[in-house]
Amino acid sequence: MRSKRQRKTDAIQLRTRATRTIKRHAINRTVNRQSSGAILAELKHRLSEIYDLTAAGSVLTWDEATYMPKGGAVARGRQSSLLRRLAHERFVDPALGRLIDRLEPGTGKLPADDASLIRIVRRDYERAIRVPAEYVARENAHGSASYNAWIWARPANDFAAMIPFLEKTLDLRREYASFFAPYDHIADPMIDDADEGMTTATIQRLFAELRRELIPMVRAICDQPPADDGCLRRSFSEEAQLGFGLSVAKQMGYDLERGRLDRTRHPFCTKFAAGDVRITTRVRENHIGDALFSTLHEAGHAMYEQGVNAAYEGTPLGSGVSLGVHESQSRLWENVVARSRPFWEHYYPALQRTFANQLGSVPVDIFYRAINKVEPSLIRTDADEVTYNLHIMLRFELELKLLEGRLRVKDLPEAWRAGMQAYLGVTPPNDRDGCLQDVHWYFGSIGGGFKSYTIGFQSYAIGNVLSAQFFAAAVKAHPDVSSEIASGQFGTLHGWLTDNIYRHGRTLTPNEIVTRATGSPMTMAPYLAYLRRKYSELYQLPQS
Amino acid sequence: MRSKRQRKTDAIQLRTRATRTIKRHAINRTVNRQSSGAILAELKHRLSEIYDLTAAGSVLTWDEATYMPKGGAVARGRQSSLLRRLAHERFVDPALGRLIDRLEPGTGKLPADDASLIRIVRRDYERAIRVPAEYVARENAHGSASYNAWIWARPANDFAAMIPFLEKTLDLRREYASFFAPYDHIADPMIDDADEGMTTATIQRLFAELRRELIPMVRAICDQPPADDGCLRRSFSEEAQLGFGLSVAKQMGYDLERGRLDRTRHPFCTKFAAGDVRITTRVRENHIGDALFSTLHEAGHAMYEQGVNAAYEGTPLGSGVSLGVHESQSRLWENVVARSRPFWEHYYPALQRTFANQLGSVPVDIFYRAINKVEPSLIRTDADEVTYNLHIMLRFELELKLLEGRLRVKDLPEAWRAGMQAYLGVTPPNDRDGCLQDVHWYFGSIGGGFKSYTIGFQSYAIGNVLSAQFFAAAVKAHPDVSSEIASGQFGTLHGWLTDNIYRHGRTLTPNEIVTRATGSPMTMAPYLAYLRRKYSELYQLPQS
Repeated sequence: MRSKRQRKTDAIQLRTRATRTIKRHAINRTVNRQSSGAILAELKHRLSEIYDLTAAGSVLTWDEATYMPKGGAVARGRQSSLLRRLAHERFVDPALGRLIDRLEPGTGKLPADDASLIRIVRRDYERAIRVPAEYVARENAHGSASYNAWIWARPANDFAAMIPFLEKTLDLRREYASFFAPYDHIADPMIDDADEGMTTATIQRLFAELRRELIPMVRAICDQPPADDGCLRRSFSEEAQLGFGLSVAKQMGYDLERGRLDRTRHPFCTKFAAGDVRITTRVRENHIGDALFSTLHEAGHAMYEQGVNAAYEGTPLGSGVSLGVHESQSRLWENVVARSRPFWEHYYPALQRTFANQLGSVPVDIFYRAINKVEPSLIRTDADEVTYNLHIMLRFELELKLLEGRLRVKDLPEAWRAGMQAYLGVTPPNDRDGCLQDVHWYFGSIGGGFKSYTIGFQSYAIGNVLSAQFFAAAVKAHPDVSSEIASGQFGTLHGWLTDNIYRHGRTLTPNEIVTRATGSPMTMAPYLAYLRRKYSELYQLPQS
Repeated sequence: MRSKRQRKTDAIQLRTRATRTIKRHAINRTVNRQSSGAILAELKHRLSEIYDLTAAGSVLTWDEATYMPKGGAVARGRQSSLLRRLAHERFVDPALGRLIDRLEPGTGKLPADDASLIRIVRRDYERAIRVPAEYVARENAHGSASYNAWIWARPANDFAAMIPFLEKTLDLRREYASFFAPYDHIADPMIDDADEGMTTATIQRLFAELRRELIPMVRAICDQPPADDGCLRRSFSEEAQLGFGLSVAKQMGYDLERGRLDRTRHPFCTKFAAGDVRITTRVRENHIGDALFSTLHEAGHAMYEQGVNAAYEGTPLGSGVSLGVHESQSRLWENVVARSRPFWEHYYPALQRTFANQLGSVPVDIFYRAINKVEPSLIRTDADEVTYNLHIMLRFELELKLLEGRLRVKDLPEAWRAGMQAYLGVTPPNDRDGCLQDVHWYFGSIGGGFKSYTIGFQSYAIGNVLSAQFFAAAVKAHPDVSSEIASGQFGTLHGWLTDNIYRHGRTLTPNEIVTRATGSPMTMAPYLAYLRRKYSELYQLPQS
């Protein structure tokens, strides 16, 4: 038994120890809280610089496509790649990784947006550091060389010239996949780059379902008398086309105080800041559909970016969540809205006033049928809503076979022709309008580009499917959406998209966005229902 | 006396030592040569990145002035200043200084261009590192704040609001000068920034000579009946004005494969690369002179930058040599060429065809007198060739008094009015059209901006003087120049300017350029002779 004195001493020691422990905990908490805040601030500061370097690079790219005189090309290439390199170096800096590691344990105590930020930065960082800098340099150099060869080879119909480039591209893409091993399928890492959570297997199931429906649908349509789209192919003032398209985009909700439209060879959307999201379009004097639908397509991308919560500006949270969801927004506005009958019931009189000589005597029904004409054709970018998906499926299948080594590059033209015949019943007379037509593969991208640099073909199809799923959910929540469109009102639809998709940026995963907004993960039913309803009516098909 | 053997040993030793010495020298030379090459390559690599970061920043600034939607402003400010900071940090990096130091001893062996490069980089570097980073940050922040206040204060005619800003600007400019102490005059460091080799004393002598000539000349002109410039103030299609100006600029030698023209609020010239030198102009529907002469002025700057030897691209050698020499080129094309009678003998018929309703019945003599109308006025940027210099002198004198502390900021409006009365016989009715009119002081620049960021007023006058000196030398070398201008031919003049000024970039000093091209350092005689000849004829003045 201990003496009284001894016990007193023990008690004092215990008390002292307890006090020390409490103090230490208090200090630790303070330190943790302070340093969490400080670490987060440091992380956000670094991310903001990376964002700004990337945005500056995008300004250079936009200028290159819009206004740069051709003498500027060499220096511009050097300047753009310097900015890309500086941004990349800052992002893969191990110091950034240490900041993420130090924040991880405290995540539970952070506001939800900060926790999302850390999740996204960790994902992006861990993917980025798996890819060695020297690989990035090799891939960029090869991508440019291959693109420059394709610029000549496509018009010359010279696929043979592209064989060595495409073989090297495939080797590089396989090497890229190896950084993310193990995987179920060699294309999975590329697909996951573009659309987090998607796999080769997901896409294959999606396409199998789509194929079952579309091939008979296209056949049935082809059995009907073709639509006449001659009214689209008259001579339309280019300025008037641009003005009309932009005014519609503005009414849809594209904010021109924070955006603008310019002309380029290929349409695109680019973002320099929440307050500066620009679109471009091409214009063909002898086809009124080209500029109009391109403008509305790009405006759909732009409205998404303009609608992201401004608080995420300067961080990786401040952009669209995936390429597929992004594409769903361009397709929703371009196709589901702007190729619909209610839309043209409102806008056609204005279009007729703008082009009185060309369209004054063309009834709205003829125009509506013309802009929705279904016709198997050779070129993906000219394809209608229905056959478009078949172009995508062909490309996706060929990509998988090439990556797996089941198809040799030299046999690609023949496989392309066979695929076109099987899917669309047409055969390209040459490779120029066959397997040489799209830039994607020849820019070094197969299955989706490195760091989402270029879109993978599958994302276009995901976008089509989701466009209908989102629209159906919006109509379910607000049954007035269709009648509002018929009176040129888009506020309810734009508001629903903003609340359910746009404002979240990347705080949720793509699957969370889809599920919360529509009540289920990505599903084919709404898209198939949309196509069946629309095209059965247009082509008097039997309702299945 | 030494033995034979001993002498033989000595001889061997001497020979060995000599061999060793020779070998050591040879090795040193090799090492020096190799490492000189490597060091120079490293220096050029660093300079090229700095050049590219600066150029990227210039693209952002150009876009801000031309096409940026207003929502982009906040992020753009952040992005531009990031690029400026990265370029500045890289330039004042001590590692860059060490490279320069290591190259210095070997300069004698280097090709002349490399020796020039080292001289220029050393000059720029040593000037840059005298200015602490925290000063640069303070000056940039103050410059923006002051500019933003002026944007409101000028239209509100509120000079009082600008007093504290201008006082702080003066304090900052005095602090800037202190980094370069000792100096003869506090304005010398600023003047030397813009025009290497010039001092307050040089400029004061220049202005004294100019004043003696110009004040009586303006008085004599004012005694004559005023020219009628009503023909310039009709309604001219803006597009046609732009088209005409650009076609003339192109014929003068502005290469549109490596440049372009856009509209901005204030005209400027900017360079992103030797292959991409752009100009901007403003257009006023009711004044044909504005866009035309602004376009040709900026084209003068642009032809200079386009003409620099392409081998200097990416280094500090690859740009105009000083602000004064630069301004001489804009003034030469705008005034000496495009406000001359031979020029309009050729171009006026084309202008009349373009604006048949407005100018069809106006004789060329009336038009020629209109574009050269001399009239004391309140606004510098609207001033004619003769009175323009008086506006400059007033500003320069006031700047010196303010910097010296002999004039208090609050007394500036009164001093301005008194000066305008003394120089031009007119008194501004308010400060908006008086001492608030120019952006320069309110952007934080007095005496020339930090790192040539904005031009100092004196450089405009240097430009006027040199424009005539260069033109006279070109005519002396090629007497056909004037008759060629009278037939719309500019090849000989453009070629002479390229050979004597443009191509050198910064390899020579401004004084070397002037002396080699014209046979003497900057001198007033050709400019005074030019003004006397031209305006004596226009206003029938007695030839002095």
